[in-house]
Amino acid sequence: MRRGRDKAAREVASFQQAPYKQKSNPFQPMSIFSEDEIESIHEASLKVLSDTGIDIQSPRAVEILKREGAMIGGDGKRVTFDPEFIMEKITTTPSEFTLHGRHKDRHVHVGGSFIVNTMVSSAPNVSDLDRGRILGNFEDYSNLIRLGESLNTVHALGGYPVEPCDVDVRIRHLHAVSAATRLCTKPLFGYAIGSERMLDAIEIVRIGRGIDEETLLREPSITTVVNANSPLVYDKALLEGAIEMAERNQPVIYTPFTLAGAMAPITIAGALVQQNAEALAGLAFHQCVKPGAPAMYGSFTSNVDMRSGSPAFGTPEYTQATIASGQLARKYKIPLRASNANASNAPDEQSVYESQMSLWACLLGQVNFILHGHGWIEGGLCASYEKVILDAEMSQMMEAFLEPAKVNKDTLGVDAIAEVGPASHFFAAKQTMERYETEHYSSMLSDWRNFESWRDSGAVTTTQRANKIWKQLLTDYQEPTLESAIEAELSCFVEKRISEGGAPPL
Amino acid sequence: MRRGRDKAAREVASFQQAPYKQKSNPFQPMSIFSEDEIESIHEASLKVLSDTGIDIQSPRAVEILKREGAMIGGDGKRVTFDPEFIMEKITTTPSEFTLHGRHKDRHVHVGGSFIVNTMVSSAPNVSDLDRGRILGNFEDYSNLIRLGESLNTVHALGGYPVEPCDVDVRIRHLHAVSAATRLCTKPLFGYAIGSERMLDAIEIVRIGRGIDEETLLREPSITTVVNANSPLVYDKALLEGAIEMAERNQPVIYTPFTLAGAMAPITIAGALVQQNAEALAGLAFHQCVKPGAPAMYGSFTSNVDMRSGSPAFGTPEYTQATIASGQLARKYKIPLRASNANASNAPDEQSVYESQMSLWACLLGQVNFILHGHGWIEGGLCASYEKVILDAEMSQMMEAFLEPAKVNKDTLGVDAIAEVGPASHFFAAKQTMERYETEHYSSMLSDWRNFESWRDSGAVTTTQRANKIWKQLLTDYQEPTLESAIEAELSCFVEKRISEGGAPPL
Repeated sequence: MRRGRDKAAREVASFQQAPYKQKSNPFQPMSIFSEDEIESIHEASLKVLSDTGIDIQSPRAVEILKREGAMIGGDGKRVTFDPEFIMEKITTTPSEFTLHGRHKDRHVHVGGSFIVNTMVSSAPNVSDLDRGRILGNFEDYSNLIRLGESLNTVHALGGYPVEPCDVDVRIRHLHAVSAATRLCTKPLFGYAIGSERMLDAIEIVRIGRGIDEETLLREPSITTVVNANSPLVYDKALLEGAIEMAERNQPVIYTPFTLAGAMAPITIAGALVQQNAEALAGLAFHQCVKPGAPAMYGSFTSNVDMRSGSPAFGTPEYTQATIASGQLARKYKIPLRASNANASNAPDEQSVYESQMSLWACLLGQVNFILHGHGWIEGGLCASYEKVILDAEMSQMMEAFLEPAKVNKDTLGVDAIAEVGPASHFFAAKQTMERYETEHYSSMLSDWRNFESWRDSGAVTTTQRANKIWKQLLTDYQEPTLESAIEAELSCFVEKRISEGGAPPL
Repeated sequence: MRRGRDKAAREVASFQQAPYKQKSNPFQPMSIFSEDEIESIHEASLKVLSDTGIDIQSPRAVEILKREGAMIGGDGKRVTFDPEFIMEKITTTPSEFTLHGRHKDRHVHVGGSFIVNTMVSSAPNVSDLDRGRILGNFEDYSNLIRLGESLNTVHALGGYPVEPCDVDVRIRHLHAVSAATRLCTKPLFGYAIGSERMLDAIEIVRIGRGIDEETLLREPSITTVVNANSPLVYDKALLEGAIEMAERNQPVIYTPFTLAGAMAPITIAGALVQQNAEALAGLAFHQCVKPGAPAMYGSFTSNVDMRSGSPAFGTPEYTQATIASGQLARKYKIPLRASNANASNAPDEQSVYESQMSLWACLLGQVNFILHGHGWIEGGLCASYEKVILDAEMSQMMEAFLEPAKVNKDTLGVDAIAEVGPASHFFAAKQTMERYETEHYSSMLSDWRNFESWRDSGAVTTTQRANKIWKQLLTDYQEPTLESAIEAELSCFVEKRISEGGAPPL
């Protein structure tokens, strides 16, 4: 049974989202480092690639790199790269591209100053205020995608919002991606866990969009993330999935897993050097597979709490590293991915201030693709329903901030000020009456009533209000239509692949 | 009895603040508006001052303005200003000055790219998780100042943290400012509620610092805020207090109360025009009293929630208005005050995301004096103990962000990366061992342990941890010493003024 139809949901006060509209960032990006310092990081990363190199664990990927002129070590996997090789290869990466959803009004622009925001991705656990924290499952997977479809601040999926652990791993991707296709009209995601799973996901998305293979080649329609297995290793399965994506002109986000002090140098400059080396190696590889295939530079650099050994996110280090990554990605003219990250164990105040540090880093660093945008807590180990709504509110506020107030004769209000004069008020002024319904940001989640009204209506705190809102959204959710011919082809493909046994565990 | 000595306080895990150090902002300020747009706002505000004018309710202030050449209306209070008059007068405002604390290592620099952060100010109510919300009183007033003295992110007081309502208004200022002098070594504040109270506060601060009147003239040692009674009115009592401050070379923060849609035009551009007109009038007046006297440009522009009529803070409008105020204040080369504002009724997630919007606005707008920096909730109607700690943590994170990571041969870590190589980790690397204790930001409030450790130790959320921390700070607080001669003079002055009946209610 679907969640969200309980009594509490019916009691929620009305709320309204801002309309769906992909935003671009009108402000100058921030610089953390001087141009010379960015150049030093760039050069150090090229030195890492030429002197130390990267372990490429896929023989197929090694063959491609060898063919294109990279140097292969005696063990057949340690690859070193000339600086010229890297810089020449990455130049064919598109600086901007369109990522296509199932509905044409859900296509998004990736790159430039455009922003794509997503749902939480890849969490093994899921939580809400009613049930606490439980293992990820298909019902919650589906409900979180329903929220992603319903929320106007979500522009794409960036992974499974939560892992549907109750579905056998051999057929999980078939059920998960086909369900996402049915539940969501926004651009989708598939995991690059080997060629077979990646090809299944690409095929499901192609069928869902009702396009042929040639159209798919022209129209990026699915993303995947390839994490470096930091330090300096790219995994076999992920690279082989990436090859399928590149060959079909689909975008891969190459994201080093550079937590300073654990998988990368303890200094932020050093972690960025390693991030840059690993990202450039991935991006160059992508162009070796197919010049011109879209890709993104993934930034995930943060630091480890050296007392507990736990990853920390939304720290001052994370914020600086993300903004600095923007300087690097713009140097290479490659779209940038970062995250709305935090390490709190609950959707509480810590989760909010760490997420705010992350979101402002995305805004100031001109991040193009905000992964884990809605619902991430616990450094990615849990998807929280209430955090989804907290993040939607914060994202809405950021989007409103990105549209600066207009300055013209009418808005300057000199006449309104003269009309009202000293010692009066503007509630009844002509300008106010004309504009009061739409002039200011309207919140979905904030309660701006006075203390007495708030207390007398139950002193409901923000997370409790978020709990009511996600339930209401699920109650109101209507599954988007899918043409019957597409539905038939989709079912047929999934059933055929299931009957073949799906894809074996790796 | 002092609060904070209960059992819970003894159970709190150890925590450590970052050391006290006033920070400056190394980044370029953000621009919300183009230079042309800022010029339009500037010119519109001068037009308001010349065409509509301001009601000046103090005859003493009107006399000063008349003497200096402003135009006085037939009612004896409507003052209009030539643009040249305004622009000429404000040029003598110092762009930077030192504000002196009772201890010389607590002097702070005001202006340029320096940041002064403060405690919550002027709240009528106070709350904590244990007692809920109660009327302000002298015990809580004193405890909040103790927290302000103890917290390294607090650099000055910006008002009474909470109103000590249990002290008779005739002698309240005498008790309040003398208590602040004893409890706190950082720069202090007095309310400009008429000449008499302002002079008492100045005298108490002078005695507390152990300086003579001539030294006080050279050394700004106390601030006050003069709010415009928007639209376009300056109150008698506040201006007469401001005259005493200006004559003694003490800084006044002229802050229009421009809530868009209520006391100012509904448009942000219009509200900024009115803010700028009112602020410039106050700043010009200050220089009429005494050329060269320090002052600050106060920004408080936000919007009213047109559904409930309540003020909203930390909104996208507030954020834009604050950053735009930075553009205006820098145009005039006058230090800028804004606030860490929010409108939440509890120290919850809404209070945090709205405060973050405000704090980032302060950072990006290069605000010099952050009023209400620690503990403000409910749009200023309540001081929250837990919010004090949430704000201290967020301020600490901002301060750490303002120190960019170093980029040099050592931090770039090429050798560390070569030493570790692929498929290993950096926990035992030489560079890690040398730096792990101090390299990263250390949190006072965040819990970065994994979920299981956090759950098994009681699943304590952020606000609950904040509750333990403020109690621990009060337990650990030690009253700073005061020379016995100063103590004697202070007591003598306060007793004398009390025996005289204090200052009558206005």
